[in-house]
Amino acid sequence: MTTTVLTPDQVLEHWQGQRRLTRRVIDAFPEDKLFHYSVGSMRPFAQMVHEFLKMAVPIARGVATGKWEENPVALPATKSELLRLWDEASEQLTQIWPTIPPARFAEIDRAFGQWENPGFKTILYAIDNETHHRGQAYVYLRGLGIEPPPFYERN
Amino acid sequence: MTTTVLTPDQVLEHWQGQRRLTRRVIDAFPEDKLFHYSVGSMRPFAQMVHEFLKMAVPIARGVATGKWEENPVALPATKSELLRLWDEASEQLTQIWPTIPPARFAEIDRAFGQWENPGFKTILYAIDNETHHRGQAYVYLRGLGIEPPPFYERN
Repeated sequence: MTTTVLTPDQVLEHWQGQRRLTRRVIDAFPEDKLFHYSVGSMRPFAQMVHEFLKMAVPIARGVATGKWEENPVALPATKSELLRLWDEASEQLTQIWPTIPPARFAEIDRAFGQWENPGFKTILYAIDNETHHRGQAYVYLRGLGIEPPPFYERN
Repeated sequence: MTTTVLTPDQVLEHWQGQRRLTRRVIDAFPEDKLFHYSVGSMRPFAQMVHEFLKMAVPIARGVATGKWEENPVALPATKSELLRLWDEASEQLTQIWPTIPPARFAEIDRAFGQWENPGFKTILYAIDNETHHRGQAYVYLRGLGIEPPPFYERN
């Protein structure tokens, strides 16, 4: 018997919890700092969030369907529009998730024609990438003298 | 039938991949910066790594046995000793992992008498915490003008 650590629903809930935290981190930035502030020649956090938007829904769709299509979303100019796109993507994830055929989590595929991995690894990479860069946004917020949202809070 | 996204072996391999990356990030710091450099009044990276050491093996043991015991390890004074403790903990994780009874991943327990969660969530929290703070170390390295190890590389 194969032991299950995580079911698809648990992975989605884990990701959505991360996304709720990321949303609070986006919202904690003053608008100009979100788009322009960084440390050590790194990208401002808005550009990292833009990267998350280009990964999340296309990866869920790719694992679901085997079709790897880029998300042509442009970096918006305002925090409110970025948050709107964020919420839209979270909703799309929830809609796409139950359409992922169970076998696709283990099946090896070439994400975006480039990265060959089982579906679950491609999904975990997207979650890790979000966690990694959001951690960087915590440093930006601290550098700005702003208290970041608590890391352990995912609701 | 329950769909499996991740088996125990896959979760361990995911974590050990993260740990291999974290090891390279530790090693990328000049010794004095590892213990003393930070941004925005945050902790130096060595103190974050000390936190990871206090979480990883005790959490694996706790999920395996239901006994939640703190790791009394002190923050070492040198990079080489920190790396030695890191390697020791990675090896212990590999040894403890197969002793985790399958049902414990889903079973709710109070980690360290405080945090009530199923085993898999406690484990994911340790991995996320490491990814989060390691992302912060990337900002420290960039702030120091040092190119961090590639994030996608986990071997």
